Amino acid sequence: MSETLRVGVAGLGTVGAALIAQIARERDVLAARCGCGIEVVAVCARAKGKDRGVDLKKMRWFTDPVALARDDGIDLFVELMGGAGDPAASSVEAALAAGKSVVTANKALLAKHGVKLAALAEKRHVALNFEAAVGGAIPIVKTLREGLAGNAIDRVYGILNGTCNYILTRMEQEKIAFADCLKDAQRLGYAEADPTFDIEGHDTAQKLAILASLAFGIKVDQSAIYVEGISSITPADLTAAEELGYRVKLLGVAVKTPKGIEQRVHPTMVRKDSAIAQVMGVTNAVTIDAEGINPLTLIGPGAGGAATASAVLSDIADVARGVRTAPFGRPTARLVSVRKAPMQRHAGGYYIRLEARDKPGTAATIAKRLAEQDISLESIVQRHAKDGQPAKSGSVPVILITYATTEDAVRRALAAVGRDRVISGRPQVIRIEKN
Amino acid sequence: MSETLRVGVAGLGTVGAALIAQIARERDVLAARCGCGIEVVAVCARAKGKDRGVDLKKMRWFTDPVALARDDGIDLFVELMGGAGDPAASSVEAALAAGKSVVTANKALLAKHGVKLAALAEKRHVALNFEAAVGGAIPIVKTLREGLAGNAIDRVYGILNGTCNYILTRMEQEKIAFADCLKDAQRLGYAEADPTFDIEGHDTAQKLAILASLAFGIKVDQSAIYVEGISSITPADLTAAEELGYRVKLLGVAVKTPKGIEQRVHPTMVRKDSAIAQVMGVTNAVTIDAEGINPLTLIGPGAGGAATASAVLSDIADVARGVRTAPFGRPTARLVSVRKAPMQRHAGGYYIRLEARDKPGTAATIAKRLAEQDISLESIVQRHAKDGQPAKSGSVPVILITYATTEDAVRRALAAVGRDRVISGRPQVIRIEKN
Repeated sequence: MSETLRVGVAGLGTVGAALIAQIARERDVLAARCGCGIEVVAVCARAKGKDRGVDLKKMRWFTDPVALARDDGIDLFVELMGGAGDPAASSVEAALAAGKSVVTANKALLAKHGVKLAALAEKRHVALNFEAAVGGAIPIVKTLREGLAGNAIDRVYGILNGTCNYILTRMEQEKIAFADCLKDAQRLGYAEADPTFDIEGHDTAQKLAILASLAFGIKVDQSAIYVEGISSITPADLTAAEELGYRVKLLGVAVKTPKGIEQRVHPTMVRKDSAIAQVMGVTNAVTIDAEGINPLTLIGPGAGGAATASAVLSDIADVARGVRTAPFGRPTARLVSVRKAPMQRHAGGYYIRLEARDKPGTAATIAKRLAEQDISLESIVQRHAKDGQPAKSGSVPVILITYATTEDAVRRALAAVGRDRVISGRPQVIRIEKN
Repeated sequence: MSETLRVGVAGLGTVGAALIAQIARERDVLAARCGCGIEVVAVCARAKGKDRGVDLKKMRWFTDPVALARDDGIDLFVELMGGAGDPAASSVEAALAAGKSVVTANKALLAKHGVKLAALAEKRHVALNFEAAVGGAIPIVKTLREGLAGNAIDRVYGILNGTCNYILTRMEQEKIAFADCLKDAQRLGYAEADPTFDIEGHDTAQKLAILASLAFGIKVDQSAIYVEGISSITPADLTAAEELGYRVKLLGVAVKTPKGIEQRVHPTMVRKDSAIAQVMGVTNAVTIDAEGINPLTLIGPGAGGAATASAVLSDIADVARGVRTAPFGRPTARLVSVRKAPMQRHAGGYYIRLEARDKPGTAATIAKRLAEQDISLESIVQRHAKDGQPAKSGSVPVILITYATTEDAVRRALAAVGRDRVISGRPQVIRIEKN
């Protein structure tokens, strides 16, 4: 490598522009920290004329990212185009095949092709770094890959999607319905026009697949994750959670169980006094339970041009300092496959909200059906209409918190309660994560 | 280096024993992650016969840590003896001089000799790693040194002493006096028999000196830190803070100001809804404000054998993977000296609690003295006796929260109030940290 690490950047959106500005601004301190200069010598984007607020005059311009990836004039290829398909996939592959290190912020690409790309990086003895792919500026990849190199990890879980946490925060604080809150988030730019990817949990699942691989030495595999979004959550759930000492968050959870690694994304009740429950708005957070470290929580901005660029730059600096770490912490040959954990076997506590018919014997019927499945109750609250709102004709909300049981038992009990015709509508069920 | 990194461990207390157990237990995953084996081949401690719960049979035994440090049979020297003087200092120096990398958990040593030792490591192209010296298992050294390699940092602050946070937490929750709480903490093993080093803020100052060096590229220098402990804090202060939306924490703060880097340790009011305010008991936390990252907070166990050993092991793993980072993030020749920031120039908000004489004109006199120093008030609360407790004869507690002003102005105003003879006793003053 020359005295300067020559960087090619493909993708000049907000992150790319922020990265180029930051590298220029911090030139001296980066050189001091890395022992060599870092210079962006070439860039690639579709529209050349566009004003991006940064000076691109000294950089060579490419329109084909694969050509940039292969170019002899760069030592490191930075992929900021996004998406699991081409040109992101083909250009990252081309760079690695050409023996160049790669830094990417592309969670979708890693969730789909992570193992294959890591094997290629390994074969060519180059780096494949992706700190920005999960949790924005939070150094969670480095922490799992290097900081906890010698720890047996029991569980990693986090708030990995700012849009969902923003919506849940506003729903809780302002007691507004999901649909209204989503509309407002879209108007303010916190949610996409098509919000499905975020609110149905798929974004969280891609990030979780990466964290789970780093934590447990398993192959990145989004299809092994159970996924459930937040669209069914109501302000009534959030209020009830609050009163019971919990808060509802969309969590990605990967946990070691006697039956293997369980990976799941779903709305989750967490203890209100835990660090992760305090995380509001678009902020992200990850908690790790490891041997002797119980727990470690990292909280920070999960998105935004500057925050993401900062993580990308730390990855570039590692390459400049000559650090080459196995992308997922271990040789890819050591990564093991996992199957999707069957959720009916999930064990834990549950929050259940029912609209019970307001007639004698209803509570007894519900209690009996739960007891038949060996489900013990931590609490039961029958909520009455308040603030002058009329109760739904003839129905009373009943909220149950169970002790640890299985998903299967809960489903059976609720099916039986349904057949008894003592409730109206679908029961709401939210898993409780012990923390 | 051979296929195995041969480690010598000096100091076999709880951390040393936990480290040896962890290396044995995680042998396979460490080898996979590091690309080479890690083996403790030699140890050094005073009492050879003592049962430490770990198998030391295959290790060579040294009684002189300097001899171990120089021994040709080891590649890496781990110093877990503690203390700024010998044998810690001489053995670390001997190891570095012999071209061996060093891992240490010794904050006192680094606070006193950090720059000199870093220069020696640099000269010999070896590592000097010290993740465990600050914040236990929290990967704060790695985050500042590598994760934020390209960020201009504005401020780093944290709860760095578990004893103080434990005492403040119990004082707040149980409304017990400092002295009683300290006694209880001593009984339970959370405070030393001589608690001065912890409760007067010196432990926090040593850790802060290290963080400030990593964050701002300054020389580690404990003498440049203003230090004030927690012994003057009363339950009344904690209750008042709570009511005003704050919590009191002993913070170490290093912040870039127009006049240079200000480093200080003192009881601090932080906003109750901030991540750091939620940190209770012996847990540690560090918050970083950097360009585009506002803020990043890391929370975790700050002490304990397993937590400290985990950080030591991550440092060892970095050496095994061949990583050599400048100990304080940049070449020592680039580290600049700082002077102790004069606290009278400190700018910020203040909490002031006075015992005011209960007679006409007192409030007016106090308000006038503050106004003379251009101090604006955010709030003023006159507290009355409650819960059947009689008020001190003729005096009423008055609590003031000021807008941003200077320490000098506050001191002058309170001196004038004192001369006016409208208060009894010493005013309590606690700085507010904007967060």
